[in-house]
Amino acid sequence: MAKAKWVYSFGDGAAEGRADMKNLLGGKGANLAEMSNLGLPVPPGFTITTEVCTVFYDNGKTYPASLQNEVAAALAKLEASIGARFGDRENPLLVSVRSGARASMPGMMDTVLNLGLNDETVLGLASRSGDERFAYDSYRRFIQMYGQVVLGVEHHHFEDLLENHKIDIGATLDTELKASDWKQIVQGYQDVVEHELGKPFPQDPQEQLWGAIGAVFSSWMNQRAITYRRLHNIPAEWGTAVNVQAMVFGNMGEDCATGVAFTRNPSTGADEFYGEYLVNAQGEDVVAGIRTPQHLTIAGKLANKSTLPAMEEVMPGVFAELNKVRLTLEKHYRDMQDIEFTVQQAKLWMLQTRNGKRTAPAALKIAVDMVAEGLIDEREAIRRIEPGSLDQLLHPTLDPKAKKTILARGLPASPGAAAGAVVFSADEAEKRAAKGEDVILVRIETSPEDIHGMNAARGILTTRGGMTSHAAVVARGMGRPCVSGAGDLRIDYKAGTLSVRGTVVKAGETITLNGTTGEVILGHVPTIHPELSGDFATLMGWADKLRQMKVRANAETPLDARTARKFGAEGIGLSRTEHMFFDATRIIAVREMIMADDTAGRRTALAKLLPMQRDDFAEIFEIMKGLPVTIRLLDPPLHEFLPKSEAELAEMAKATGKDVETIRHRAHALHETNPMLGHRGCRLGISYPEIYEMQARAIFEAAAKVLKDTGEAVSPEIMVPLIVSKKEFDILKAMIDKVGAEIAEASGVTVPYMVGTMIELPRAALLAGEIAKSAEFFSFGTNDLTQTTYGLSRDDSASFLGAYQKQGIFEQDPFISIDTEGVGELVRIAAERGRKTRPDIKLGICGEHGGDPASIQFCQEVGLDYVSCSPYRVPIARLAAAQAAISIAPAETTA
Amino acid sequence: MAKAKWVYSFGDGAAEGRADMKNLLGGKGANLAEMSNLGLPVPPGFTITTEVCTVFYDNGKTYPASLQNEVAAALAKLEASIGARFGDRENPLLVSVRSGARASMPGMMDTVLNLGLNDETVLGLASRSGDERFAYDSYRRFIQMYGQVVLGVEHHHFEDLLENHKIDIGATLDTELKASDWKQIVQGYQDVVEHELGKPFPQDPQEQLWGAIGAVFSSWMNQRAITYRRLHNIPAEWGTAVNVQAMVFGNMGEDCATGVAFTRNPSTGADEFYGEYLVNAQGEDVVAGIRTPQHLTIAGKLANKSTLPAMEEVMPGVFAELNKVRLTLEKHYRDMQDIEFTVQQAKLWMLQTRNGKRTAPAALKIAVDMVAEGLIDEREAIRRIEPGSLDQLLHPTLDPKAKKTILARGLPASPGAAAGAVVFSADEAEKRAAKGEDVILVRIETSPEDIHGMNAARGILTTRGGMTSHAAVVARGMGRPCVSGAGDLRIDYKAGTLSVRGTVVKAGETITLNGTTGEVILGHVPTIHPELSGDFATLMGWADKLRQMKVRANAETPLDARTARKFGAEGIGLSRTEHMFFDATRIIAVREMIMADDTAGRRTALAKLLPMQRDDFAEIFEIMKGLPVTIRLLDPPLHEFLPKSEAELAEMAKATGKDVETIRHRAHALHETNPMLGHRGCRLGISYPEIYEMQARAIFEAAAKVLKDTGEAVSPEIMVPLIVSKKEFDILKAMIDKVGAEIAEASGVTVPYMVGTMIELPRAALLAGEIAKSAEFFSFGTNDLTQTTYGLSRDDSASFLGAYQKQGIFEQDPFISIDTEGVGELVRIAAERGRKTRPDIKLGICGEHGGDPASIQFCQEVGLDYVSCSPYRVPIARLAAAQAAISIAPAETTA
Repeated sequence: MAKAKWVYSFGDGAAEGRADMKNLLGGKGANLAEMSNLGLPVPPGFTITTEVCTVFYDNGKTYPASLQNEVAAALAKLEASIGARFGDRENPLLVSVRSGARASMPGMMDTVLNLGLNDETVLGLASRSGDERFAYDSYRRFIQMYGQVVLGVEHHHFEDLLENHKIDIGATLDTELKASDWKQIVQGYQDVVEHELGKPFPQDPQEQLWGAIGAVFSSWMNQRAITYRRLHNIPAEWGTAVNVQAMVFGNMGEDCATGVAFTRNPSTGADEFYGEYLVNAQGEDVVAGIRTPQHLTIAGKLANKSTLPAMEEVMPGVFAELNKVRLTLEKHYRDMQDIEFTVQQAKLWMLQTRNGKRTAPAALKIAVDMVAEGLIDEREAIRRIEPGSLDQLLHPTLDPKAKKTILARGLPASPGAAAGAVVFSADEAEKRAAKGEDVILVRIETSPEDIHGMNAARGILTTRGGMTSHAAVVARGMGRPCVSGAGDLRIDYKAGTLSVRGTVVKAGETITLNGTTGEVILGHVPTIHPELSGDFATLMGWADKLRQMKVRANAETPLDARTARKFGAEGIGLSRTEHMFFDATRIIAVREMIMADDTAGRRTALAKLLPMQRDDFAEIFEIMKGLPVTIRLLDPPLHEFLPKSEAELAEMAKATGKDVETIRHRAHALHETNPMLGHRGCRLGISYPEIYEMQARAIFEAAAKVLKDTGEAVSPEIMVPLIVSKKEFDILKAMIDKVGAEIAEASGVTVPYMVGTMIELPRAALLAGEIAKSAEFFSFGTNDLTQTTYGLSRDDSASFLGAYQKQGIFEQDPFISIDTEGVGELVRIAAERGRKTRPDIKLGICGEHGGDPASIQFCQEVGLDYVSCSPYRVPIARLAAAQAAISIAPAETTA
Repeated sequence: MAKAKWVYSFGDGAAEGRADMKNLLGGKGANLAEMSNLGLPVPPGFTITTEVCTVFYDNGKTYPASLQNEVAAALAKLEASIGARFGDRENPLLVSVRSGARASMPGMMDTVLNLGLNDETVLGLASRSGDERFAYDSYRRFIQMYGQVVLGVEHHHFEDLLENHKIDIGATLDTELKASDWKQIVQGYQDVVEHELGKPFPQDPQEQLWGAIGAVFSSWMNQRAITYRRLHNIPAEWGTAVNVQAMVFGNMGEDCATGVAFTRNPSTGADEFYGEYLVNAQGEDVVAGIRTPQHLTIAGKLANKSTLPAMEEVMPGVFAELNKVRLTLEKHYRDMQDIEFTVQQAKLWMLQTRNGKRTAPAALKIAVDMVAEGLIDEREAIRRIEPGSLDQLLHPTLDPKAKKTILARGLPASPGAAAGAVVFSADEAEKRAAKGEDVILVRIETSPEDIHGMNAARGILTTRGGMTSHAAVVARGMGRPCVSGAGDLRIDYKAGTLSVRGTVVKAGETITLNGTTGEVILGHVPTIHPELSGDFATLMGWADKLRQMKVRANAETPLDARTARKFGAEGIGLSRTEHMFFDATRIIAVREMIMADDTAGRRTALAKLLPMQRDDFAEIFEIMKGLPVTIRLLDPPLHEFLPKSEAELAEMAKATGKDVETIRHRAHALHETNPMLGHRGCRLGISYPEIYEMQARAIFEAAAKVLKDTGEAVSPEIMVPLIVSKKEFDILKAMIDKVGAEIAEASGVTVPYMVGTMIELPRAALLAGEIAKSAEFFSFGTNDLTQTTYGLSRDDSASFLGAYQKQGIFEQDPFISIDTEGVGELVRIAAERGRKTRPDIKLGICGEHGGDPASIQFCQEVGLDYVSCSPYRVPIARLAAAQAAISIAPAETTA
C-alpha cells in the first residue's frame, strides 16, 4: 500500500483515470475522467480513491500518510488549471465535494457545493462575478449544506431562520431577497452553527475541505448507506471515493442553468432526449424536486403538456451542444446515459454521466434497439436486463374498464399499478408490510431516509418533485409504481390525512396508484394481466438460444400448467399431488382414508380418490403435450388434512361416519411436535404403501389413456419425496415399477417414465452416490434442504430472521437466495456423487430458489439440467439462465 | 465359486477345519474341528459351509452343483470312521443335524437328532443296542423333532398323542412307557405327520438328511432369526453352516448321561467347574429345562442345596476325564468355555465348545483372573468385556433393609434386580414396554419366540428350567435380571394370574425380582446403588491406561457432577443451563423475563436469576476441582418455560403481575410450528443478548469466586449452541469476552476460559473451517445433528421408526448409534475443516451417542479428544474408548 496512488486528477481534455477504473475511482470519478478523456467540457478536479476509504476504516478512521501531500498537489494543479487559488481573497477557487462509490448509493452523503467560501473569499467571489447577491447566496447555500451534511446541524434550524427573515421583510420568494438580506442570513447561519456546535463555522478552506472529505468517508457507514447496501447486496468492503471538483455555477444569472437528462426515455426506452432543467439554479434544485423543472426538448414539453419553455427554445445553441454530447456519450458508452450539466454564462459544463436507471420495458426496448443499431450484441443485450425487473412486465395493470374515482393526477414516475392502505411514514410502511398488508407510502417528498419504507410499500405517491425526483428514481429502480408531484393533494402528517378538494383519505384507507398514467385513485381498483411487447419476445428468443439449462414450472392445476406453457416453460418440475387432495369433494375421501382402521379401509377410501387423481394427471399430460411432468407423491403429514375447528370436526364426523371423539383421538395420535421432521414424504409411502400405490396407478392410467387418446407422447417423472437412504427408495421404486408393469399389461400401452427423488435432506445429499444407483433423477428441494441445513423453520424464522439480516449475520434471506456456502455445498456434493454413479442422471431444482436469478447462476455453476419455478417467474428464470450461461462462457460471441 | 470346497470333515483326532475358520464353518463347526485337532473325543462328522447358505439364497434356494457329491463323500468317510452305514438295516449310522452360524443364534433351527432312523433301521438300532425300548424311544424323538423343525408340524399334535397314550395306559412319567408303547407312539406320530401334511413321514435317510439340511438353511431367514439378528446387529450376509455328526447317546441306560457345563462359573466368574447333567437323557432334555438337572460337582451341589447326586460322585472316572478336557480347552482357547457332552456307556464324547456367555461381573473377574494367570494380556482383557454389559454392575440392587414380602424362590439365573408389572406374554411385554411401562415377563418357560418380549421386559421369571435354561442364558446375555425354575408358582395364562399358596398376583400388578438371589417379591421394592468390585477398578485402570480419548459427563446438578467424578469422569462435557431454570423459585423469574416488554424489564428479571446461576456454577466448579466444565448457554425456545395448564397460567399471572390474557397472548406469539428448528440456541442470544450476558456473568463470577476461595484451578468452557455461521458466533463471543474482561477487572482474578460451539446443524459442520477461526472448541451435538441430517424429529419418529428398522431401511436407531454414513460424514468434515483452521482445536461429542460403544469407536476413528455421556455411562465410555484405541492400533502390546 505504501506506493499506492491515492489521488487521480481530471479536466482540460485529459485525466489520470478511465471509465474502467470504477472500482478504484467510484462510478462518478471514473466517468468524470472518461468524459475528460473524450474532450468533453468537464470542470477540472480530482478523485480520492476508494482504497483510501478502506484504509480509513482499517486504521481507526485515519488516512494514509501520503494522502495530505497528494491532495495538496492535485489542488495546486487544479488552481493552475482554473487560474484561481483556494482561499484566495481576490480570486478564490471554489470546489464541490461529492461521494462516489462503485455503484450509485443514494444512502450516502451526496454533495457539498461552493466549498472554499468564507468571510473573506466571499468578497473575492462578489467582485469577480460582479454580483454580491450571488456571492452571499452562494455562501449561505454552502453554510447550510456544509452545516447539515458535514457538521450535522439539523435542516430546520436553517430553514426556520430563512423563513423568519422572509416574514420580517415581508418576502415570499427567495428571489425577493437582496444581497444585504443574504449577508444577514449568512451571519445568522454562522450563529446557528456556533450555537448548535459550540464552535464557530470553519473559516479555513483547508479545514472545510478535509471536513467534507471526512464526512464522505464517514457517510459510507451511516445507517442509510448500510440499509441501502443490504437491500442491494453491495459489500461494505467496496468503499467510496471522494470527488473534488472546481465549481461552475448555474445560478449566476439568466444565462445560467442546470439540468439532468437521460440520453433516451427512461420510462419507455424511446430514442429521444429526455430531461429537465432550471434556469438560474444550482443542480440540487432539480434533483431535490423543490422547484418544478422545465423540459429540455419541445417534444417533451408538448408530450407532458407543460406550459414552461423548453431549453431547446430558451438556449438553442447550448442545447445543440448538449445534444451532441448526448450522442457522443451513447456511442462511447454503448448504453443509455444519465447526465448532469450546468450552463454557466452560456457555457456548457458536464458534471456527471453514468448508465441511466430505467424501467423494465425501457431496459428491454433500449437493449433490443441497441442490438439493431449495432451498438451491442445479443449477449450484451441479455446481460443488460436485470431478470427480476421482468416482474414489472408480468404483473397486472389496472383494468381499464373498471370504474375509477380519480382523486388527483401526478407525474407517471414509475410504471405499474398498485393498491394499498395509505401510510404516511416509512417506518409505518415497513411495520404494516411486515404483517402482510399492502401499503402505499404517501409523502410530500422522499429522501434517502425513506428507502426502507419505499421498499416495503406496494407503491409510492409524492406531492412534490418531478420525474427525476428522489421518489421517482428510487421507485423505478425498485420496480415500485410511483406517482410523483401530485401537487393538488394536501398531506397533513399530524392529522394523518391526505385531502383534495374536500375529499379526505385517512391513514389506513385504500388508494390505488397507476404509475404508468400518474393517476391517484380512491379505493381498490381491479387489475388485468399485462400484454408483453415484441421486444420481450425478441429478447426471450435470444435468451432461449443462449441458455443451457431448461426451465420448467411448478404447477399442479391446469391453469398453472397453461400459464407455465404460455411463459415458455419446458415441462413441469414439480406437481404437488397433495394440492389436489384439498378439493371439497376429495377431502372427505382423504379423511376417510386417514380414519380407516386398517389397510383394507384405506384402500376403499383411496379407490374413491383414484379416478379424480387420474383425471388431474390426464389433463396436465394433455396440456404439456409430451413435455416432462414431474409428479411428487404425497408429501405432507396426514394431520394436515384433518379439520382444525369444532364445526369442521362435526362435519367430518358426519361425512366419515365416525364419532367426534374418535376423530379427535386420531388427530391427537397424528399430532407432531415438529411436523417438518415428522411422518411425511416417503415415510408415508413406507407406512401406508397403498397411498403411493394409488397415486402411481393414477399416473400410469392417466398416461396410458392420454397416449391412447391423443397419440401424443407423455413423459411422467415420478418423484419420491424425503428420501434419506437407497433402501427406502428401492422399496418404493419396486412398488411403482410393479404398478407400471401391471398397467402396461392391462392397457397394452407402455409409457416411458422415470422414477427419481427429491434431494431435500442433508443425508440424501451426502448419500447421493448410493441413491443414484436406483434414482433416475434428482430434484433439489432446496426449501426443505435449507430448513434442515440451517435447522431453521421457515414458518418460525420470521421472529428473528430480520435481526439476523440487520446484524449482517445472514447477508440474504436463505429462503430467497440459495446459501451457496452451506446448502450449496450439499447440492454440489449431491450433484457430483449422483453423476459419478450415474453419469446421465437428470438434475433439477424445484425449490423457490428455482426462480431466483442468483440461485439460478449457482445452478448453472453446479451444472444442473433444469430449474423449475412458479409459472410467473418462468421468463425471469429463462433470462437468468441465459445470463448464467454467458457468465460461464463470457468469451464467446454470438452477435 | 466353482472350485470352492463346500464340505469339511472332522473327527478321529483330526479335521479339515480350524477354530479360526468360524466365518466359513460357523462357530460350532469350527470348534468341533478344533476339538478334533486337539485330540478330544468328538463324534466324527462334517460341516457344510456358510458359503453354501449364501449361494442358496443368491440362487433361488438351490445348492451349488458339486455339493451333492461332496456330502456323499463326507458321509462315506463318516461311515468308514464309525463302521456303520447310513440307512443300513443291520448297523445303521445315525446322525445329528445342527445349524451353526458365525455367532450363536438362538433364533434358528437348533438340532435334529437320530436322523437316519426309519421303520427298518430302527430294528438295527434295537438289535445293536440290545434295547428295543431305547430304539423306539429314539425313533419317536426323531419323528417329533423332524416333524416339528423340518416338516413344520405343530408341537402339540405330538404331545397330545403322547399324553393321551399315557392316560390310556394309566402312566404319569415317560419312563413308565415300554417298548411296545413307543412302537405305538411311533406309528401314531407317523399318522400325525401324514394327516397334517398329506404325505407320509420320509423313510429314505437321504431324503431325511437333505430335508434337514434345507431346514437349517431356511431357518436362517425365519422371523425369529431375523429378529435376533436385528437385536444383535448380525448381518444377513453371514449365513449359517450345517453340522452333520454321528449320533452318540446319553439315553442308552444308567451308564449314559448328557450335560452342559461352563469351565468357570458364568455368574460370578469364579474358577470352578460349573455345570449340570442328566443321567440317561438326550442333550435337549438339559437345555430345554424340562427335567431339573443335577450338578456336576459336589461343591456345586452343596452350594445350591441340591439333594440329587453330583456327577463327580456318580461317575467319578468320566468326571475326571471331563475335568481334564475343561482344563485343556481353557488353556487352548484362553477363555471360559461353554461345553456340551454326552456319556455313552461310560465313554465321554464332546459335542460342542464355545466361548461361554457370562454375566458382567463374571466377565470382569474372568478377564482379570486370566491376566493374572498369564493366559491373556491387558489389551485382550479389555477387549473381552462388552462395554454395555457394565450397566449390570452399575445399576441399583434391592435395598437389603427394605421390607420384602417374598412370594417364592427360584434359581438366581441372571443377577440384578428389577420391578415391574406382571405380563404373561412376550407380545404384551413389548406392547406395554413401548408405552414406557416397566414390565416383568412371567412364563412357565421361555423359547426363542419370546426373545422380543424378554428384551422389552425389565426382568424375566420362569417356573420351570435351570440355570442353563433358555430363559437363564438369554437373560444373562441381555443383562436382564432373571429368576428361573420358581416351581412353587402357578401360572394360569388364561386367567392372567400368578399364584402361590393362596396369594394371587394378577396381570398388571407389580412384583420385584432379585436375580442375584432368586427371590420373587410382591410389590415394588426400593433399590440401592451397586458396590463395584476390585476387578472393576483393575480393569478400568487398564482401560484408562490404554485409551486416548478423555471421558467426560453430561451433568448439571451437583449430584450428577459428584456421580460423574465417582465413575471417573475427567470433566463435564455438557452442562445444560436451562435445567437450572426449572426450579420452582427460579421459573418465576424466568417467566418474568419472558413477559418483560423491553430489554430493561428483561434485565430486571435476569438480575434475580444471576445469583442463583452463579451459585450453581460455583458448586459445580468446586466439585470438578479444576477439570474442564463445558457450560452450554440457554438452548430451548422460550415457550418451553411457559405454563401449559390453566391453573399454572393463573398462578403465573399472579406471580408476574400480568393478566392471564396477556400471558396467553405472549404464549401464542411464542408458539412455534417446528420448535426444533425455531427461535432457540444462539438465536436467543442474538435476539436477547442480555440473557447470554447474564449467564456469562454468572459463569465468570462463579469461577473468580471459586478460584479466590479455594485457590484451585477452574476451567470453564463456554459453549454457544446452534451456531450456523461464524458471524453469529463472533457477535456472541465478543459479548462473552467483554463480560469476562469486566469481571477479571472487577474481581482482580483472571480465569482462563475457552469459548466454543456446538456443531449440531449440517451448516455448522460444513462451515466448520470458518467457525473454527473464532471457536476454540467444538462439541458435536449429534442428537440435533441426527435430527436435521435425517429430517427426523426424535419426538415424532416413534410412529414409523419401528417400521423402518423392521424393513431394514435403518439398520439401527440412528439416535442410539451414530449413523456413520450421513451424520458421521458431517462430523468427519467438521473435524477435518476445524483442525485445518485451528490445529489445536478441542473436539468432543456430547450427544447421547457419547455413551454408545459403537459411536465411541467412530469418535476414535475421527480423532475426537473426548466423549461426554451421562454419568452412569462413564465407565462404559471409558472401556469403549480403550477398546476403540486398541482397535485402531491392534498390533501394539502392553502386557
